[in-house]
Amino acid sequence: FKYDESKVGNEKIWELMNSYIGADKKSIQRSIVNHVEYTLGCTRFNFDNFNAYQASAFSVRDRLIEAWNDTNEYFTTNDSKRVYYLSLEFLLGRLMQNSLVNIDVEPKYKDALMDIGYKLEDLYEQEVDPALGNGGLGRLAACFLDSMATLEIPAWGYGIRYDYGIFKQGIIDGYQVESPDYWLARGNPWEIERADVTYHVRFYGHVRKYNDGGVERANWEGGDIVVAQAFDTPIPGFNTFNTNNLRLWKSRPCNEFDFRQFNAGDYHGAIHERQKAEYITSVLYPNDSSEQGKELRLKQQYFFCSATIRDIIRRYKKTHTDWNNFHEKNQIQLNDTHPAIASIELLRILIDEEKLPWDQAWNIIYKTFAYTNHTVLPEALEKWSVKLIGNLLPRHLDLIYLINFFFIEKVKQKYPGDGARISRMSLIEEGDEKKVRMAFLSIICSHSVNGVAALHSELLKKTIFKDFDEMFPGKIQNKTNGVTPRRWIHCCNPGLSDLISDTIKDDHTEWITNLTSLRELSAYSTDEDFLKRFIHVKQENKKKLAVWVKEHTGIDIPINSLYDVMVKRIHEYKRQFMNILYIIHRYLMIKDTPAHERAAKFVPRVVMIGGKAAPGYANAKAIIKLINSVAQKVNNDRDIGDLLKIVFLPNYCVSAAQIIIPAAEMSQHISTAGTEASGTSNMKFIMNGSIIIGTMDGANVEIAEEIGAHNMFIFGALVPEVDTFRKQIQEGRRDYIGSRLKRVFDTIRAGTFGDVSTIHAMLYSIENGGDYYCVCLDFYPYITAQEKVDETYRDYHKWCKMAIEGIAYSGKFSSDRTIQEYCQDIWKVSPVSIPKPTTNPQAR
Amino acid sequence: FKYDESKVGNEKIWELMNSYIGADKKSIQRSIVNHVEYTLGCTRFNFDNFNAYQASAFSVRDRLIEAWNDTNEYFTTNDSKRVYYLSLEFLLGRLMQNSLVNIDVEPKYKDALMDIGYKLEDLYEQEVDPALGNGGLGRLAACFLDSMATLEIPAWGYGIRYDYGIFKQGIIDGYQVESPDYWLARGNPWEIERADVTYHVRFYGHVRKYNDGGVERANWEGGDIVVAQAFDTPIPGFNTFNTNNLRLWKSRPCNEFDFRQFNAGDYHGAIHERQKAEYITSVLYPNDSSEQGKELRLKQQYFFCSATIRDIIRRYKKTHTDWNNFHEKNQIQLNDTHPAIASIELLRILIDEEKLPWDQAWNIIYKTFAYTNHTVLPEALEKWSVKLIGNLLPRHLDLIYLINFFFIEKVKQKYPGDGARISRMSLIEEGDEKKVRMAFLSIICSHSVNGVAALHSELLKKTIFKDFDEMFPGKIQNKTNGVTPRRWIHCCNPGLSDLISDTIKDDHTEWITNLTSLRELSAYSTDEDFLKRFIHVKQENKKKLAVWVKEHTGIDIPINSLYDVMVKRIHEYKRQFMNILYIIHRYLMIKDTPAHERAAKFVPRVVMIGGKAAPGYANAKAIIKLINSVAQKVNNDRDIGDLLKIVFLPNYCVSAAQIIIPAAEMSQHISTAGTEASGTSNMKFIMNGSIIIGTMDGANVEIAEEIGAHNMFIFGALVPEVDTFRKQIQEGRRDYIGSRLKRVFDTIRAGTFGDVSTIHAMLYSIENGGDYYCVCLDFYPYITAQEKVDETYRDYHKWCKMAIEGIAYSGKFSSDRTIQEYCQDIWKVSPVSIPKPTTNPQAR
Repeated sequence: FKYDESKVGNEKIWELMNSYIGADKKSIQRSIVNHVEYTLGCTRFNFDNFNAYQASAFSVRDRLIEAWNDTNEYFTTNDSKRVYYLSLEFLLGRLMQNSLVNIDVEPKYKDALMDIGYKLEDLYEQEVDPALGNGGLGRLAACFLDSMATLEIPAWGYGIRYDYGIFKQGIIDGYQVESPDYWLARGNPWEIERADVTYHVRFYGHVRKYNDGGVERANWEGGDIVVAQAFDTPIPGFNTFNTNNLRLWKSRPCNEFDFRQFNAGDYHGAIHERQKAEYITSVLYPNDSSEQGKELRLKQQYFFCSATIRDIIRRYKKTHTDWNNFHEKNQIQLNDTHPAIASIELLRILIDEEKLPWDQAWNIIYKTFAYTNHTVLPEALEKWSVKLIGNLLPRHLDLIYLINFFFIEKVKQKYPGDGARISRMSLIEEGDEKKVRMAFLSIICSHSVNGVAALHSELLKKTIFKDFDEMFPGKIQNKTNGVTPRRWIHCCNPGLSDLISDTIKDDHTEWITNLTSLRELSAYSTDEDFLKRFIHVKQENKKKLAVWVKEHTGIDIPINSLYDVMVKRIHEYKRQFMNILYIIHRYLMIKDTPAHERAAKFVPRVVMIGGKAAPGYANAKAIIKLINSVAQKVNNDRDIGDLLKIVFLPNYCVSAAQIIIPAAEMSQHISTAGTEASGTSNMKFIMNGSIIIGTMDGANVEIAEEIGAHNMFIFGALVPEVDTFRKQIQEGRRDYIGSRLKRVFDTIRAGTFGDVSTIHAMLYSIENGGDYYCVCLDFYPYITAQEKVDETYRDYHKWCKMAIEGIAYSGKFSSDRTIQEYCQDIWKVSPVSIPKPTTNPQAR
Repeated sequence: FKYDESKVGNEKIWELMNSYIGADKKSIQRSIVNHVEYTLGCTRFNFDNFNAYQASAFSVRDRLIEAWNDTNEYFTTNDSKRVYYLSLEFLLGRLMQNSLVNIDVEPKYKDALMDIGYKLEDLYEQEVDPALGNGGLGRLAACFLDSMATLEIPAWGYGIRYDYGIFKQGIIDGYQVESPDYWLARGNPWEIERADVTYHVRFYGHVRKYNDGGVERANWEGGDIVVAQAFDTPIPGFNTFNTNNLRLWKSRPCNEFDFRQFNAGDYHGAIHERQKAEYITSVLYPNDSSEQGKELRLKQQYFFCSATIRDIIRRYKKTHTDWNNFHEKNQIQLNDTHPAIASIELLRILIDEEKLPWDQAWNIIYKTFAYTNHTVLPEALEKWSVKLIGNLLPRHLDLIYLINFFFIEKVKQKYPGDGARISRMSLIEEGDEKKVRMAFLSIICSHSVNGVAALHSELLKKTIFKDFDEMFPGKIQNKTNGVTPRRWIHCCNPGLSDLISDTIKDDHTEWITNLTSLRELSAYSTDEDFLKRFIHVKQENKKKLAVWVKEHTGIDIPINSLYDVMVKRIHEYKRQFMNILYIIHRYLMIKDTPAHERAAKFVPRVVMIGGKAAPGYANAKAIIKLINSVAQKVNNDRDIGDLLKIVFLPNYCVSAAQIIIPAAEMSQHISTAGTEASGTSNMKFIMNGSIIIGTMDGANVEIAEEIGAHNMFIFGALVPEVDTFRKQIQEGRRDYIGSRLKRVFDTIRAGTFGDVSTIHAMLYSIENGGDYYCVCLDFYPYITAQEKVDETYRDYHKWCKMAIEGIAYSGKFSSDRTIQEYCQDIWKVSPVSIPKPTTNPQAR
């Protein structure tokens, strides 16, 4: 369909569309009630909180759509340069409050709903968490979307609309039990189903070579066709009319005639075969290393990349004919290697379909793509077997080999005779099973590669990408992560947001988009009035968390204890294990201490640990079981009372984080140095006045730089010490346990915490040279740091001063700053501001 | 959620809901454009015909929802007696035009759309056929819905929302090729997804017996749980505010925690297992006898019956506590035996959950259910293996055995010592594999049993249900089917509708709800002016069909030939085979005739045959191939020219019927006497001025009674003659082929029509005593009747007079009449008229 300006009636349509929904109380109520009646088909007799939430969400969506349509139209008309953020995960969290805040109508909705008998806060609780991500990587993508819209960058997210997001975590007898989270069960009012935006995606099939007027060309044919359908979620910027888009793809059966089924006769078989198309986007992989190499995962990656690239090309070709301009109008950021195949897909289309010469096509992809690395852990670097790719994507494998051929030629030129280097740098890892190194492929096909924190970026250059840094100096750069202060201060901690606004005499619309202005707060870190209000806010947040904990675990936690929180995916490198070992140690110490001396020696604590373990990750699941078993024992030990409470926070997710983080007084970020790329929850905790106990790893290093190491509890081995320790244990050193840790191990083995046999293999391994994550090395400094924590907390005003200075100097960690750096250094893109609505078409 | 009158804000909500969308041009345009923008998320730049259709459909839905909500509220408030029509199929056809006509805004929409540049007729063509039925049975259910709403009966339809309706039929090299019809690919604007209406449905598991204060009770436990979610389609009555509901169930995975998966560890396996829940409602069985006994089919039946019964009970219990009133407030009609398990489900709930004594529970179900039989063909009578039911529905099998026990006791009492009768009447058919006779179960559990045409009902009493008619005299009654004149005259044949209205000086709102008033037309059957207009209407319809045929088959058909149509499922008993044999005979006769004598001897004809064959029904598929092969030969025989054209109409469906039927001049209904229960397309053809050539079978008998046999071309054996013939061939008679038919067979075998080897088995069988459907017996009378057709058509005014008298006396065959009889004789239910909208709440 081409838009025909002359079409009869178009003026009328324009006139009818060119009006905007009012933001007065009556208009809001009318819009909500209309959705109850006409969208949900409900009557006033079945208008409950859930329906009220849905209807309100639809009414917000209407507003978003207005701006979203105007935004896209404006970008098209102005031929704006676009950024596309490709990510297999977008861990958005709930959208209602965030949307209302960003479009600045939260108080109006609150008022309008109150007037018809509904509390806005109750409706927030009706929203399902769209949990389309595992952890940090997915949540980063969500923060970036918020910042890109707020900064008025023409940027779209692209990903997958999974039917099942990350599993729901249940705890039964202390064990993690996974249950599928069919989050769409009651619908999703935030998305717009685009029946009109679909692409065909091919799998399997064969490559046909043919002669095209003397040029040898290839064409990929046959195989299975699956339809990718778009679902759009408008992403409003804060305090701007700009509204970007998150386009997620769902796989659907292809409804076109399938000649292969001709005469096969098995009608039901044919339908079921077709329905399997829906499996592709059915489930988010829960980050399980044992699942690497699974065909369905590769299908997901290619499926979403192919639809995305086709979509970008279609948009570009609507208004352009010159391919050489492509990279000047389109920048594609790969969030980790999961979308790496996108560059090969673009190359394939340019060469096989658009028939561009290799050099031109190569130049386009190289200048268009940029790649973000998220890990240096070797086991997390994607490698796909050549056999698998060759079967599923035969033409792409051809092209990967071709890229590798040209690349190796260049390496040979630069380092003649260095065979070891060539084999290290080859895209193909030789071995029993040949594999494609997706990270290397991403580096070669991108004009920029970045790490996500200063330390991490340095490690990339020194370790896994050393050869590439030598060959392409300057290509690997750093972009320290950030988080959006809209969700992570204003929405989740309204008390603190108000306190900040009142204190620095600044409407939140100012500081929240310019977070370094929080520095003004440092002047108040000893101000009595400010401290009083600060403490009050924290107390209220702690109360709210205590209610949540009671509701979700049945455990009563005292309000006046130190709230010590560690929430993140459960992993050996993140070292929840060290945390629980310390808790056992602390428990033993308390028990050792005569009752009347305990109050002087130990600050009462509630230690809260939350996070999901990948379903196939036995050690992580054993750690969860150990935490729960210890909690069971300690919490029921009358001798301990309120001096120590341990809570495993079940089913940690974004909406839980929004309650947990504002209530935390201390948070633990204690990964082995050199393992955590950045961490972003550390930033959120800092912004909410929680003090970090942590190692010099990931973004902790930069947080220390910003807020001062004296405002944190830093401990533990640095990267070189970790390397040395690892070398020692590899060479046979076994004297690293120490008596206090040994006592902890013995206590576990003695059955003090009941049957925790699942942890025994880990204990044995750690004792016998398997302490790869240096738990024993860091355990003793950790004890010391914990003692410092207790000591500091006794002077609560001093504690608060540290926390407040943390907030004051957290400005760097706004994702707005991160995105600004991406724009400047990688994408070379500028803001495009959408004019505010007007009913005068000439003025638009 | 309980509605709380006192809730703050309810008055405001009521006030906001208590307004109705205007029907002026501006309101219609505003509503359409709002849906384009806010529901579809489109801009004026991608506002094409499909979007305009969708938006218009949504805007119509808004209007329907207003009346639909008011209707349900009114029925609830008035405690109206309800009818529930349970059917595994509802072949609705397109809904846009039908809805606009019924709510009387078609001209207004036409005008409003024209003004913004869209033609309403073009938008009609954008709608997908919701083909959730196989043929007559499903289309009958749809006509009944229209009549029940029009007659203001509080009645809901209940069925399944299949993802894949009846397959799309393609023709490749003359063979039928089935392709799945994923009709929801671009959404369905007519339904309201009810996230709030769900039930859990159990499968498998076990029965636990327990002692409940001295009473032995049973409980069904364990097994798999699947969620049934409701999708509602409002069904507007014609010229009334009453708007009924069609509730279709979709199966969904259950999102609740599944303890069986605990510690199983296979997370992806668990998800895929769960997703299989969606298979239950994924596909409509295409009526394939080879599929009888398939577990998935039984699952479908129980799934929809269980959700439906729970829904009915929930509604009843909201306002009632006395179970003895249940049947006075609820009547459940079973459309064939497919929903037979519903009565057992109600019995189970009453006994096991509501803990009613057997006699009371039995009494309730007996007085609540009524059953419609649709076939006397033994192979089409459902029987489910005891083993299958016992595994899938163990408690239901217990209850069936119990019902059978009590029933057999009664039979013994009435017919002591008649063992043969007992074994004939038992619900359980003994044999290698024990089976439950679902028809007998339905008879026993219902207070009424009916056939669908006079002849059919008589046959029921004399043949398959003879024992039951003797035991329960009067229980088996007749309700001759009907069709809705809204769709089948007014919507599909606007020219004829206008002609009728003009002629009998009656706005169509009158005659269309009182179809016997068409009798007035008989006075005009020889009126010159009327005839002229009548012929013009038919010519225009023929032209429209010719365009359709060209588009769908590539064949040019002449306008002035006799349009001879046979459209219905392809089946041996319906005898498309006899039709094509006659065509071959006619072709040979033409070839035998010297060219100059042909015009005098043969009327030029276009013979059109359309219909789907069940994918596993080899003979039916062979017939399709034969028709196409003959067409290929004859249509390309220059010697024949326009004297004979043969068209296989591909993918016959409701929307195609609406073009084909108004254009037909003759239609064939030539089933073997005693096989077609009613037929309803015969009624549609009559109403559209097409003359029937047919046997004395099904409703043809009553059509002949009404319009007079002289206005039809009736031929062929009657039921007793069929019986005699069958007996003769069984006893060895083989002299029945005759020379003319033999010549036709020989011509086929000689390869005149190319390779039609798939038909050879049928030819052989027919020659060797396998002519069960009496093709040879009726072939010669059929030739004679066809000669009469030619002769009559030469006097076109006489032909038209017959056709007009057919229309004039077709009034009996309005489904309004049928429904009135059901209301009076079976359901004992009266109309409840919803007051027209008013903005004064006191007046409602």
